[in-house]
Amino acid sequence: MNDQLPYRVGFVGLGLIGGSFALALRQGGKTADICAWDRDPQALEEGQELGVIDRGCASLAELMSNVDVAVLAAPTMASATLLPEMLALAAAGTLVTDVASVKGALCDAVADLPDEKTAHFVPGHPIAGSERHGVAAARADLFRAHRVILTPLEHTDVDAVTAVTQLWESAGASVQTMSVSEHDAILAATSHLPHVLAYALVDALAASPTRDDIFRFAAGGFRDFTRIASSDPVMWRDIALANREPLLAAIDEFSEHLDALRRAIDDGDGAALDKTFGSAKAARDEFARDLERRSLNSDTGTGPVGH
Amino acid sequence: MNDQLPYRVGFVGLGLIGGSFALALRQGGKTADICAWDRDPQALEEGQELGVIDRGCASLAELMSNVDVAVLAAPTMASATLLPEMLALAAAGTLVTDVASVKGALCDAVADLPDEKTAHFVPGHPIAGSERHGVAAARADLFRAHRVILTPLEHTDVDAVTAVTQLWESAGASVQTMSVSEHDAILAATSHLPHVLAYALVDALAASPTRDDIFRFAAGGFRDFTRIASSDPVMWRDIALANREPLLAAIDEFSEHLDALRRAIDDGDGAALDKTFGSAKAARDEFARDLERRSLNSDTGTGPVGH
Repeated sequence: MNDQLPYRVGFVGLGLIGGSFALALRQGGKTADICAWDRDPQALEEGQELGVIDRGCASLAELMSNVDVAVLAAPTMASATLLPEMLALAAAGTLVTDVASVKGALCDAVADLPDEKTAHFVPGHPIAGSERHGVAAARADLFRAHRVILTPLEHTDVDAVTAVTQLWESAGASVQTMSVSEHDAILAATSHLPHVLAYALVDALAASPTRDDIFRFAAGGFRDFTRIASSDPVMWRDIALANREPLLAAIDEFSEHLDALRRAIDDGDGAALDKTFGSAKAARDEFARDLERRSLNSDTGTGPVGH
Repeated sequence: MNDQLPYRVGFVGLGLIGGSFALALRQGGKTADICAWDRDPQALEEGQELGVIDRGCASLAELMSNVDVAVLAAPTMASATLLPEMLALAAAGTLVTDVASVKGALCDAVADLPDEKTAHFVPGHPIAGSERHGVAAARADLFRAHRVILTPLEHTDVDAVTAVTQLWESAGASVQTMSVSEHDAILAATSHLPHVLAYALVDALAASPTRDDIFRFAAGGFRDFTRIASSDPVMWRDIALANREPLLAAIDEFSEHLDALRRAIDDGDGAALDKTFGSAKAARDEFARDLERRSLNSDTGTGPVGH
């Protein structure tokens, strides 16, 4: 890799996340040239018109032979196909990183490659998003005060991890590293499980014979609780399938706790409900205070959605 | 009942809901005199200082012998004890109504009384609330553009239902009637079940060995989804126990749909996930549009919480 800034950076997939990272890097003065390749040529045209990228590439091969840093920012399922192609095309030392929500499935897709082929691949995941999508929704401050998790493998080059860390920090993010399995378990619990619960709840109510009355009398609390059920179904299908094992474990853990509450209600056990509701409220209040503190330390809020 | 407006109105329990209804009625010119009785004398003092009520009563008996309309606005469990006392003290024709979140348990508490004792009792439930509580949080516009459900019994006096409907309409609410069992099933599905799910989720995550990391990496989507787990545990314990049967049925219905999603994830059945996530998104988007439309038709929003 060319160790000297500014870098030539290429985005494989140009949507909200890739576009926002491109804008932030450009604003931070980290880039000499920004190119992108996308299956949708319109995204490239739009990105260029909006000043998000300098130019579109006609092929993945063209992109990979002209960059110091390649950022894979395609949808979950496409990423598992694209990453091995990118690593096969990468010159020795080209830095490769990604933004996928599930790390295990992506790392499995390159597990059979020799270590030297993946030494400069740094798996990453910015915990940020928006209800909007596409490059037109890109914002330079999308990652400010947000967390980015990197999940380097055993043989990942230390300097490569440092370089990717600095790129994200220049976008205003706070970067932490952890293992692939820890990442996938945490995201299953805090993001993938809540989405499945919201989809299951709306699905259950929509199937009810009194569906119309149910929705007619639901209020603002219900709207907040089910907001994530308005997320893109295809994206969430792919995430659910890619993070299958950790998500199943999180669903089972949740179901045990729901069953315990169900038993307490059935038994009229007010003391058990008091205890569970009370400790859940305490934990949630503490979490909300922490999130508020993090958000106050930055210019922007904490953003509506992470996945 | 004195059929001529303005009424002498008394509130049994003076908190957010009772106080807001008092302010709205006063603003609408419906009241000649507003009094209240509360177990907490400070609530009465505060209510008087804030101009929410004209005077506090020293006892329930004093209140009941000086009003045309008595509004029971106490917590769920206390209401089941207070209502029979109120009806025993009520002069013939005194209008009695309430605001409790669960109608079945309250109506059961007076089911053994002779019909003439309950003919002027109109069970009611305003679908509105706030994260704040207590009379100091009362607002005259709390019910504007919100729904109020009345669940008259077979022998409830028709004029009494009309009178209570007009009082709520003067507060800006939209009033509908339905059966007690329909009300309790709808509220179980749209409000009580989501609260139980949010409490169960936070409880499950808080019990995890990686609890600290889980909360550290959770973002804004998780905050919205778990907001209702910050609700008052004692109030929700009481609601869960009072609405036991409909809530258990709603939990079981939800669990069936969650199990189906779990099976689809386990089987790698992308088509099934597509279908469920897609139809849930469509239903939720439609609900959100309806709620938005209702809210646009009024001065104020739809409020954060209903229970």
